[in-house]
Amino acid sequence: MRLRNKPWAKDFMAEHPDVLINEEEGAVKDWKAIFNNENPIHVEVGTGKGQFVIGMALANPDINYIGIEHFDNVIVSALEKAIEAGKPSNLRLLRGNGANMEDLFKARELDRIYLNFSDPWPKTRHAKRRLTHESFLARYEEVLKKKGEIHFKTDNRKLFEYSLVSMSSYGMILKDVSLDLHAEMPEDNIMTEYEEKFSAKGQPIYRLEAMFNN
Amino acid sequence: MRLRNKPWAKDFMAEHPDVLINEEEGAVKDWKAIFNNENPIHVEVGTGKGQFVIGMALANPDINYIGIEHFDNVIVSALEKAIEAGKPSNLRLLRGNGANMEDLFKARELDRIYLNFSDPWPKTRHAKRRLTHESFLARYEEVLKKKGEIHFKTDNRKLFEYSLVSMSSYGMILKDVSLDLHAEMPEDNIMTEYEEKFSAKGQPIYRLEAMFNN
Ligand SMILES: C[S@@+](CC[C@H](N)C(=O)[O-])C[C@H]1O[C@@H](n2cnc3c(N)ncnc32)[C@H](O)[C@@H]1O
Ligand SMILES: C[S@@+](CC[C@H](N)C(=O)[O-])C[C@H]1O[C@@H](n2cnc3c(N)ncnc32)[C@H](O)[C@@H]1O
Repeated sequence: MRLRNKPWAKDFMAEHPDVLINEEEGAVKDWKAIFNNENPIHVEVGTGKGQFVIGMALANPDINYIGIEHFDNVIVSALEKAIEAGKPSNLRLLRGNGANMEDLFKARELDRIYLNFSDPWPKTRHAKRRLTHESFLARYEEVLKKKGEIHFKTDNRKLFEYSLVSMSSYGMILKDVSLDLHAEMPEDNIMTEYEEKFSAKGQPIYRLEAMFNN
Repeated sequence: MRLRNKPWAKDFMAEHPDVLINEEEGAVKDWKAIFNNENPIHVEVGTGKGQFVIGMALANPDINYIGIEHFDNVIVSALEKAIEAGKPSNLRLLRGNGANMEDLFKARELDRIYLNFSDPWPKTRHAKRRLTHESFLARYEEVLKKKGEIHFKTDNRKLFEYSLVSMSSYGMILKDVSLDLHAEMPEDNIMTEYEEKFSAKGQPIYRLEAMFNN
Protein backbone atom coordinates (compact mmCIF):
# COMPACT_ATOMS: atom_id res chain seq x y z
CA MET A 1 0.00 0.00 0.00
CA ARG A 2 1.62 3.27 -1.10
CA LEU A 3 1.40 5.76 1.73
CA ARG A 4 1.17 9.44 0.97
CA ASN A 5 1.06 11.65 4.02
CA LYS A 6 -2.33 13.33 4.11
CA PRO A 7 -2.29 16.09 6.74
CA TRP A 8 -6.02 16.71 6.21
CA ALA A 9 -6.93 13.09 7.00
CA LYS A 10 -7.72 13.54 10.70
CA ASP A 11 -10.04 16.50 10.12
CA PHE A 12 -11.79 14.81 7.19
CA MET A 13 -12.40 11.67 9.29
CA ALA A 14 -13.78 13.73 12.17
CA GLU A 15 -16.29 15.37 9.82
CA HIS A 16 -18.02 12.03 9.05
CA PRO A 17 -18.78 10.31 12.36
CA ASP A 18 -21.89 8.73 10.77
CA VAL A 19 -19.59 6.50 8.65
CA LEU A 20 -16.17 6.55 10.22
CA ILE A 21 -15.50 5.44 13.75
CA ASN A 22 -12.12 5.96 15.34
CA GLU A 23 -10.71 3.40 17.73
CA GLU A 24 -8.92 6.19 19.58
CA GLU A 25 -12.23 7.53 20.83
CA GLY A 26 -13.18 4.64 23.10
CA ALA A 27 -13.31 0.94 23.92
CA VAL A 28 -16.05 -1.59 23.02
CA LYS A 29 -18.65 -0.07 20.70
CA ASP A 30 -22.33 -0.82 20.91
CA TRP A 31 -22.63 -1.98 17.31
CA LYS A 32 -26.31 -2.94 17.58
CA ALA A 33 -27.10 0.63 18.61
CA ILE A 34 -24.88 2.03 15.86
CA PHE A 35 -26.63 0.01 13.14
CA ASN A 36 -29.94 0.28 14.93
CA ASN A 37 -30.91 -3.31 14.04
CA GLU A 38 -30.17 -6.96 14.85
CA ASN A 39 -28.76 -7.94 11.45
CA PRO A 40 -25.65 -10.12 11.22
CA ILE A 41 -22.34 -8.28 11.34
CA HIS A 42 -19.50 -9.07 8.92
CA VAL A 43 -16.10 -7.49 9.43
CA GLU A 44 -13.23 -7.04 6.99
CA VAL A 45 -9.83 -6.71 8.65
CA GLY A 46 -7.38 -4.66 6.55
CA THR A 47 -9.96 -2.99 4.37
CA GLY A 48 -7.55 -0.74 2.48
CA LYS A 49 -9.37 1.63 0.15
CA GLY A 50 -12.70 -0.02 0.84
CA GLN A 51 -13.91 -1.21 -2.56
CA PHE A 52 -14.79 -4.69 -1.25
CA VAL A 53 -16.58 -3.76 1.96
CA ILE A 54 -18.54 -0.95 0.30
CA GLY A 55 -19.52 -3.22 -2.62
CA MET A 56 -20.65 -5.89 -0.19
CA ALA A 57 -22.70 -3.38 1.84
CA LEU A 58 -24.48 -2.18 -1.29
CA ALA A 59 -25.13 -5.75 -2.51
CA ASN A 60 -26.37 -7.10 0.83
CA PRO A 61 -28.51 -4.52 2.65
CA ASP A 62 -29.58 -7.04 5.33
CA ILE A 63 -26.04 -7.55 6.55
CA ASN A 64 -24.05 -4.95 8.47
CA TYR A 65 -20.47 -4.42 7.34
CA ILE A 66 -17.51 -2.98 9.21
CA GLY A 67 -14.21 -2.34 7.43
CA ILE A 68 -11.21 -2.06 9.74
CA GLU A 69 -8.08 -0.29 8.55
CA HIS A 70 -5.28 1.00 10.72
CA PHE A 71 -3.78 3.69 8.48
CA ASP A 72 -5.44 7.10 8.39
CA ASN A 73 -3.94 7.80 4.99
CA VAL A 74 -5.55 4.68 3.54
CA ILE A 75 -8.93 4.66 5.25
CA VAL A 76 -9.67 8.19 4.03
CA SER A 77 -9.83 6.76 0.49
CA ALA A 78 -12.44 4.29 1.73
CA LEU A 79 -14.26 7.16 3.39
CA GLU A 80 -14.33 9.11 0.11
CA LYS A 81 -15.78 6.04 -1.65
CA ALA A 82 -18.38 5.54 1.08
CA ILE A 83 -19.51 9.14 0.72
CA GLU A 84 -19.74 8.75 -3.07
CA ALA A 85 -21.80 5.58 -2.52
CA GLY A 86 -24.27 7.65 -0.45
CA LYS A 87 -23.14 6.41 2.97
CA PRO A 88 -25.00 3.05 3.04
CA SER A 89 -26.64 2.74 6.47
CA ASN A 90 -25.31 -0.83 6.87
CA LEU A 91 -21.67 0.23 6.49
CA ARG A 92 -19.14 1.57 8.95
CA LEU A 93 -15.44 2.15 8.55
CA LEU A 94 -13.38 1.61 11.66
CA ARG A 95 -9.99 3.25 11.98
CA GLY A 96 -8.37 0.70 14.22
CA ASN A 97 -6.06 -2.27 14.57
CA GLY A 98 -7.25 -5.83 13.95
CA ALA A 99 -4.89 -6.91 16.72
CA ASN A 100 -7.33 -5.28 19.16
CA MET A 101 -10.39 -7.26 18.07
CA GLU A 102 -11.38 -8.02 21.67
CA ASP A 103 -11.49 -4.29 22.45
CA LEU A 104 -13.41 -3.41 19.32
CA PHE A 105 -16.13 -6.07 19.66
CA LYS A 106 -17.97 -7.99 22.33
CA ALA A 107 -17.45 -11.76 22.60
CA ARG A 108 -19.53 -13.77 20.09
CA GLU A 109 -20.83 -10.62 18.39
CA LEU A 110 -19.74 -11.21 14.79
CA ASP A 111 -21.00 -13.58 12.12
CA ARG A 112 -18.11 -13.53 9.71
CA ILE A 113 -14.64 -12.10 9.21
CA TYR A 114 -13.16 -11.30 5.81
CA LEU A 115 -9.44 -11.12 5.16
CA ASN A 116 -8.51 -9.89 1.69
CA PHE A 117 -4.97 -9.71 0.35
CA SER A 118 -3.56 -9.36 3.83
CA ASP A 119 0.05 -8.27 4.08
CA PRO A 120 2.12 -11.45 3.49
CA TRP A 121 5.00 -10.78 5.93
CA PRO A 122 7.17 -13.26 4.04
CA LYS A 123 9.99 -13.50 6.60
CA THR A 124 9.61 -16.35 9.06
CA ARG A 125 10.52 -14.07 11.97
CA HIS A 126 7.48 -11.92 11.06
CA ALA A 127 5.02 -14.84 10.98
CA LYS A 128 3.32 -13.48 14.11
CA ARG A 129 2.23 -10.42 12.18
CA ARG A 130 0.31 -12.42 9.57
CA LEU A 131 -3.42 -11.96 10.03
CA THR A 132 -3.85 -15.76 9.90
CA HIS A 133 -1.31 -16.45 12.65
CA GLU A 134 -2.80 -18.47 15.49
CA SER A 135 -2.73 -15.45 17.81
CA PHE A 136 -5.06 -13.63 15.40
CA LEU A 137 -7.23 -16.74 14.96
CA ALA A 138 -7.71 -16.82 18.75
CA ARG A 139 -8.88 -13.19 18.68
CA TYR A 140 -11.27 -13.86 15.81
CA GLU A 141 -12.66 -16.92 17.57
CA GLU A 142 -13.46 -14.84 20.63
CA VAL A 143 -15.48 -12.17 18.81
CA LEU A 144 -17.17 -14.55 16.34
CA LYS A 145 -20.31 -16.50 17.11
CA LYS A 146 -19.86 -20.28 17.51
CA LYS A 147 -18.99 -21.97 14.20
CA GLY A 148 -18.08 -18.51 12.90
CA GLU A 149 -16.38 -18.24 9.54
CA ILE A 150 -13.33 -16.63 8.04
CA HIS A 151 -13.36 -15.92 4.31
CA PHE A 152 -9.93 -15.24 2.93
CA LYS A 153 -8.69 -14.21 -0.52
CA THR A 154 -5.12 -13.60 -1.61
CA ASP A 155 -2.78 -13.74 -4.57
CA ASN A 156 0.11 -14.66 -2.29
CA ARG A 157 0.87 -18.36 -2.58
CA LYS A 158 3.11 -18.56 0.47
CA LEU A 159 0.62 -16.74 2.69
CA PHE A 160 -2.18 -18.98 1.48
CA GLU A 161 -0.16 -22.16 2.09
CA TYR A 162 0.74 -20.88 5.55
CA SER A 163 -2.88 -19.99 6.29
CA LEU A 164 -4.22 -23.42 5.29
CA VAL A 165 -1.79 -25.04 7.72
CA SER A 166 -2.29 -22.44 10.46
CA MET A 167 -6.09 -22.64 10.37
CA SER A 168 -6.03 -26.43 10.18
CA SER A 169 -3.63 -26.72 13.13
CA TYR A 170 -5.88 -24.40 15.09
CA GLY A 171 -8.69 -26.93 14.54
CA MET A 172 -10.64 -24.93 11.99
CA ILE A 173 -12.48 -26.80 9.24
CA LEU A 174 -12.13 -25.86 5.59
CA LYS A 175 -15.56 -25.52 4.00
CA ASP A 176 -14.54 -24.31 0.57
CA VAL A 177 -11.24 -23.78 -1.24
CA SER A 178 -10.53 -22.33 -4.67
CA LEU A 179 -7.01 -22.25 -6.08
CA ASP A 180 -8.02 -20.16 -9.08
CA LEU A 181 -11.04 -18.10 -8.14
CA HIS A 182 -11.27 -16.32 -11.47
CA ALA A 183 -11.25 -19.55 -13.49
CA GLU A 184 -14.91 -19.95 -12.62
CA MET A 185 -15.67 -16.55 -11.19
CA PRO A 186 -18.57 -16.78 -8.71
CA GLU A 187 -21.36 -14.42 -9.72
CA ASP A 188 -21.37 -12.75 -6.32
CA ASN A 189 -17.62 -12.19 -6.15
CA ILE A 190 -16.79 -8.59 -5.34
CA MET A 191 -13.25 -7.68 -6.26
CA THR A 192 -10.90 -5.81 -3.98
CA GLU A 193 -8.40 -3.26 -5.28
CA TYR A 194 -5.57 -5.75 -4.94
CA GLU A 195 -7.62 -8.49 -6.59
CA GLU A 196 -8.13 -6.31 -9.68
CA LYS A 197 -4.45 -5.52 -9.83
CA PHE A 198 -3.13 -9.06 -9.40
CA SER A 199 -5.71 -10.87 -11.49
CA ALA A 200 -5.02 -8.44 -14.36
CA LYS A 201 -1.44 -9.74 -14.26
CA GLY A 202 -2.79 -13.26 -14.77
CA GLN A 203 -1.91 -14.46 -11.27
CA PRO A 204 -4.27 -17.01 -9.74
CA ILE A 205 -6.38 -15.75 -6.85
CA TYR A 206 -6.65 -18.17 -3.93
CA ARG A 207 -9.72 -18.24 -1.71
CA LEU A 208 -10.93 -20.24 1.29
CA GLU A 209 -13.82 -20.39 3.72
CA ALA A 210 -12.96 -21.86 7.10
CA MET A 211 -15.11 -22.43 10.16
CA PHE A 212 -14.16 -22.49 13.82
CA ASN A 213 -14.98 -25.90 15.25
CA ASN A 214 -16.24 -24.72 18.63
CA MET B 1 -3.57 -44.38 -18.10
CA ARG B 2 -3.43 -45.89 -21.61
CA LEU B 3 -4.32 -49.54 -21.39
CA ARG B 4 -2.86 -51.98 -23.84
CA ASN B 5 -4.03 -55.51 -23.37
CA LYS B 6 -1.06 -57.60 -22.33
CA PRO B 7 -1.99 -61.30 -22.50
CA TRP B 8 1.38 -62.26 -20.97
CA ALA B 9 0.82 -60.09 -17.88
CA LYS B 10 -0.59 -62.82 -15.61
CA ASP B 11 2.23 -65.26 -16.33
CA PHE B 12 4.92 -62.59 -15.97
CA MET B 13 3.48 -61.54 -12.61
CA ALA B 14 3.36 -65.14 -11.39
CA GLU B 15 7.06 -65.55 -12.24
CA HIS B 16 8.12 -62.90 -9.69
CA PRO B 17 6.42 -63.69 -6.39
CA ASP B 18 9.44 -62.20 -4.55
CA VAL B 19 8.37 -58.72 -5.75
CA LEU B 20 4.78 -58.94 -6.89
CA ILE B 21 1.96 -60.03 -4.63
CA ASN B 22 -1.51 -60.65 -6.00
CA GLU B 23 -4.56 -59.78 -3.94
CA GLU B 24 -6.42 -62.64 -5.58
CA GLU B 25 -4.21 -65.14 -3.76
CA GLY B 26 -5.46 -64.46 -0.22
CA ALA B 27 -6.61 -62.16 2.53
CA VAL B 28 -4.50 -60.20 5.07
CA LYS B 29 -0.81 -60.56 4.39
CA ASP B 30 1.81 -60.89 7.05
CA TRP B 31 3.86 -57.92 5.88
CA LYS B 32 6.38 -58.12 8.72
CA ALA B 33 7.19 -61.67 7.66
CA ILE B 34 7.36 -60.67 4.00
CA PHE B 35 9.86 -57.86 4.67
CA ASN B 36 11.50 -59.85 7.45
CA ASN B 37 11.97 -56.75 9.62
CA GLU B 38 10.11 -54.24 11.82
CA ASN B 39 10.74 -51.17 9.66
CA PRO B 40 7.94 -48.66 9.01
CA ILE B 41 5.67 -49.46 6.07
CA HIS B 42 4.66 -46.79 3.54
CA VAL B 43 2.04 -47.60 0.92
CA GLU B 44 1.30 -45.87 -2.38
CA VAL B 45 -2.26 -46.38 -3.62
CA GLY B 46 -2.53 -46.18 -7.41
CA THR B 47 1.13 -46.75 -8.13
CA GLY B 48 0.84 -46.84 -11.92
CA LYS B 49 4.14 -47.70 -13.59
CA GLY B 50 5.99 -47.54 -10.28
CA GLN B 51 8.63 -44.85 -10.80
CA PHE B 52 7.81 -43.13 -7.48
CA VAL B 53 7.57 -46.15 -5.19
CA ILE B 54 10.69 -47.76 -6.66
CA GLY B 55 12.63 -44.48 -6.40
CA MET B 56 11.53 -44.10 -2.78
CA ALA B 57 12.53 -47.69 -1.95
CA LEU B 58 16.00 -47.15 -3.40
CA ALA B 59 16.42 -43.79 -1.60
CA ASN B 60 15.17 -44.99 1.81
CA PRO B 61 16.40 -48.52 2.54
CA ASP B 62 15.13 -48.39 6.15
CA ILE B 63 11.52 -47.98 5.10
CA ASN B 64 9.42 -50.71 3.50
CA TYR B 65 7.38 -49.67 0.47
CA ILE B 66 4.30 -51.26 -1.05
CA GLY B 67 2.87 -49.99 -4.33
CA ILE B 68 -0.77 -50.94 -4.94
CA GLU B 69 -2.14 -50.91 -8.46
CA HIS B 70 -5.33 -52.60 -9.62
CA PHE B 71 -4.61 -53.01 -13.33
CA ASP B 72 -2.48 -55.99 -14.44
CA ASN B 73 -1.54 -54.18 -17.64
CA VAL B 74 -0.13 -51.24 -15.69
CA ILE B 75 1.53 -52.97 -12.75
CA VAL B 76 3.61 -55.14 -15.08
CA SER B 77 5.44 -51.96 -16.14
CA ALA B 78 6.23 -51.35 -12.47
CA LEU B 79 7.35 -54.95 -12.18
CA GLU B 80 9.72 -54.53 -15.13
CA LYS B 81 11.21 -51.43 -13.48
CA ALA B 82 11.56 -53.22 -10.13
CA ILE B 83 13.46 -56.04 -11.82
CA GLU B 84 15.74 -53.54 -13.59
CA ALA B 85 16.35 -51.87 -10.21
CA GLY B 86 17.55 -55.21 -8.82
CA LYS B 87 14.41 -56.04 -6.82
CA PRO B 88 15.08 -53.89 -3.73
CA SER B 89 14.34 -56.04 -0.66
CA ASN B 90 12.25 -53.22 0.90
CA LEU B 91 9.86 -53.04 -2.06
CA ARG B 92 6.74 -54.99 -2.94
CA LEU B 93 4.18 -54.38 -5.65
CA LEU B 94 0.65 -55.38 -4.76
CA ARG B 95 -1.83 -56.12 -7.52
CA GLY B 96 -4.99 -55.11 -5.71
CA ASN B 97 -7.65 -52.51 -5.07
CA GLY B 98 -7.15 -49.64 -2.64
CA ALA B 99 -10.85 -49.91 -1.82
CA ASN B 100 -9.97 -53.16 0.01
CA MET B 101 -7.37 -51.64 2.35
CA GLU B 102 -8.84 -53.38 5.39
CA ASP B 103 -8.39 -56.76 3.69
CA LEU B 104 -4.87 -56.01 2.51
CA PHE B 105 -3.53 -54.74 5.84
CA LYS B 106 -4.04 -55.21 9.55
CA ALA B 107 -5.44 -52.36 11.61
CA ARG B 108 -2.78 -49.77 12.60
CA GLU B 109 -0.10 -51.49 10.54
CA LEU B 110 0.99 -48.66 8.24
CA ASP B 111 2.99 -45.51 8.89
CA ARG B 112 2.13 -43.49 5.81
CA ILE B 113 0.00 -43.57 2.68
CA TYR B 114 0.98 -41.86 -0.56
CA LEU B 115 -1.53 -40.80 -3.19
CA ASN B 116 0.02 -39.50 -6.39
CA PHE B 117 -1.96 -38.07 -9.31
CA SER B 118 -5.00 -40.10 -8.38
CA ASP B 119 -7.76 -40.31 -10.97
CA PRO B 120 -9.74 -37.04 -10.63
CA TRP B 121 -13.26 -38.37 -11.30
CA PRO B 122 -14.44 -34.85 -12.16
CA LYS B 123 -18.17 -35.54 -12.20
CA THR B 124 -19.92 -34.90 -8.89
CA ARG B 125 -21.79 -38.18 -9.13
CA HIS B 126 -18.42 -39.98 -9.18
CA ALA B 127 -17.09 -38.20 -6.08
CA LYS B 128 -17.25 -41.48 -4.13
CA ARG B 129 -14.60 -42.94 -6.41
CA ARG B 130 -12.04 -40.27 -5.58
CA LEU B 131 -9.26 -41.73 -3.44
CA THR B 132 -9.69 -38.80 -1.03
CA HIS B 133 -13.43 -39.31 -0.53
CA GLU B 134 -14.34 -39.76 3.13
CA SER B 135 -15.07 -43.46 2.60
CA PHE B 136 -11.45 -43.95 1.53
CA LEU B 137 -10.18 -41.76 4.36
CA ALA B 138 -12.01 -44.04 6.80
CA ARG B 139 -10.23 -47.05 5.30
CA TYR B 140 -6.84 -45.36 5.47
CA GLU B 141 -7.46 -44.33 9.07
CA GLU B 142 -8.13 -47.94 10.01
CA VAL B 143 -4.90 -49.35 8.59
CA LEU B 144 -2.67 -46.42 9.58
CA LYS B 145 -1.09 -46.04 13.00
CA LYS B 146 -2.50 -43.26 15.18
CA LYS B 147 -1.65 -39.79 13.83
CA GLY B 148 -0.85 -41.52 10.55
CA GLU B 149 -0.17 -39.38 7.50
CA ILE B 150 -1.35 -39.09 3.94
CA HIS B 151 0.98 -37.42 1.45
CA PHE B 152 -0.79 -36.38 -1.72
CA LYS B 153 0.47 -34.88 -4.99
CA THR B 154 -1.57 -33.94 -8.02
CA ASP B 155 -1.74 -31.54 -10.96
CA ASN B 156 -5.54 -31.55 -10.80
CA ARG B 157 -6.78 -28.34 -9.20
CA LYS B 158 -10.34 -29.50 -8.68
CA LEU B 159 -9.27 -32.76 -7.07
CA PHE B 160 -6.86 -30.92 -4.80
CA GLU B 161 -9.49 -28.38 -3.73
CA TYR B 162 -11.91 -31.23 -3.08
CA SER B 163 -9.31 -33.15 -1.09
CA LEU B 164 -8.44 -30.19 1.15
CA VAL B 165 -12.11 -29.83 2.08
CA SER B 166 -12.72 -33.59 2.36
CA MET B 167 -9.74 -34.21 4.62
CA SER B 168 -10.50 -31.15 6.73
CA SER B 169 -14.16 -32.15 7.17
CA TYR B 170 -12.98 -35.60 8.19
CA GLY B 171 -11.03 -33.95 11.01
CA MET B 172 -7.58 -34.39 9.51
CA ILE B 173 -4.97 -31.71 10.14
CA LEU B 174 -2.92 -30.22 7.33
CA LYS B 175 0.76 -30.28 8.22
CA ASP B 176 2.22 -28.97 4.99
CA VAL B 177 0.79 -27.58 1.76
CA SER B 178 2.52 -26.53 -1.44
CA LEU B 179 0.59 -24.99 -4.32
CA ASP B 180 3.58 -25.05 -6.66
CA LEU B 181 5.85 -27.86 -5.60
CA HIS B 182 8.35 -27.32 -8.40
CA ALA B 183 8.80 -23.60 -7.64
CA GLU B 184 11.09 -24.62 -4.79
CA MET B 185 11.60 -28.27 -5.57
CA PRO B 186 12.40 -30.17 -2.37
CA GLU B 187 15.71 -32.02 -2.70
CA ASP B 188 14.12 -35.31 -1.78
CA ASN B 189 11.18 -35.05 -4.18
CA ILE B 190 10.87 -38.14 -6.33
CA MET B 191 8.83 -37.51 -9.44
CA THR B 192 6.08 -39.82 -10.61
CA GLU B 193 5.42 -40.47 -14.31
CA TYR B 194 2.43 -38.13 -14.27
CA GLU B 195 4.39 -35.48 -12.40
CA GLU B 196 7.06 -35.45 -15.12
CA LYS B 197 4.43 -35.17 -17.80
CA PHE B 198 2.35 -32.39 -16.24
CA SER B 199 5.19 -30.31 -14.86
CA ALA B 200 6.85 -30.35 -18.30
CA LYS B 201 3.70 -28.62 -19.56
CA GLY B 202 4.26 -25.88 -16.96
CA GLN B 203 1.28 -26.84 -14.80
CA PRO B 204 1.70 -26.29 -11.07
CA ILE B 205 1.96 -29.43 -8.96
CA TYR B 206 -0.04 -29.34 -5.72
CA ARG B 207 1.07 -31.27 -2.66
CA LEU B 208 -0.14 -31.76 0.90
CA GLU B 209 0.69 -33.70 4.02
CA ALA B 210 -2.26 -34.39 6.28
CA MET B 211 -2.46 -36.22 9.60
CA PHE B 212 -5.33 -38.13 11.14
CA ASN B 213 -6.26 -36.49 14.42
CA ASN B 214 -6.96 -39.71 16.34
C1 LIG C 1 -2.27 -5.37 1.10
S1 LIG C 1 -3.53 -4.29 1.63
C2 LIG C 1 -5.02 -4.99 0.97
C3 LIG C 1 -6.17 -4.03 0.98
C4 LIG C 1 -7.54 -4.57 0.51
N1 LIG C 1 -8.04 -5.58 1.46
C5 LIG C 1 -7.47 -5.16 -0.87
O1 LIG C 1 -7.59 -6.39 -1.00
O2 LIG C 1 -7.31 -4.41 -1.86
C6 LIG C 1 -3.62 -4.71 3.34
C7 LIG C 1 -4.27 -3.61 4.18
O3 LIG C 1 -4.46 -4.10 5.50
C8 LIG C 1 -4.14 -3.10 6.43
N2 LIG C 1 -3.80 -3.78 7.70
C9 LIG C 1 -2.78 -4.61 7.89
N3 LIG C 1 -2.75 -5.06 9.15
C10 LIG C 1 -3.82 -4.49 9.77
C11 LIG C 1 -4.33 -4.55 11.09
N4 LIG C 1 -3.72 -5.30 12.02
N5 LIG C 1 -5.42 -3.84 11.38
C12 LIG C 1 -6.02 -3.07 10.45
N6 LIG C 1 -5.57 -2.98 9.18
C13 LIG C 1 -4.49 -3.66 8.86
C14 LIG C 1 -2.99 -2.36 5.78
O4 LIG C 1 -2.84 -1.05 6.29
C15 LIG C 1 -3.43 -2.37 4.29
O5 LIG C 1 -4.21 -1.25 3.99
C1 LIG D 1 -3.55 -41.28 -13.02
S1 LIG D 1 -2.66 -42.71 -12.63
C2 LIG D 1 -1.23 -42.10 -11.72
C3 LIG D 1 -0.13 -43.11 -11.62
C4 LIG D 1 1.08 -42.69 -10.77
N1 LIG D 1 0.72 -42.61 -9.36
C5 LIG D 1 1.72 -41.41 -11.24
O1 LIG D 1 1.62 -40.41 -10.50
O2 LIG D 1 2.32 -41.37 -12.32
C6 LIG D 1 -3.66 -43.44 -11.36
C7 LIG D 1 -3.39 -44.91 -11.17
O3 LIG D 1 -4.10 -45.35 -10.02
C8 LIG D 1 -4.66 -46.62 -10.28
N2 LIG D 1 -5.81 -46.76 -9.36
C9 LIG D 1 -6.91 -45.99 -9.34
N3 LIG D 1 -7.77 -46.40 -8.39
C10 LIG D 1 -7.16 -47.44 -7.76
C11 LIG D 1 -7.56 -48.29 -6.69
N4 LIG D 1 -8.73 -48.14 -6.07
N5 LIG D 1 -6.70 -49.26 -6.31
C12 LIG D 1 -5.52 -49.41 -6.95
N6 LIG D 1 -5.11 -48.65 -7.98
C13 LIG D 1 -5.93 -47.67 -8.39
C14 LIG D 1 -5.01 -46.56 -11.74
O4 LIG D 1 -5.14 -47.85 -12.31
C15 LIG D 1 -3.83 -45.77 -12.31
O5 LIG D 1 -2.78 -46.63 -12.69
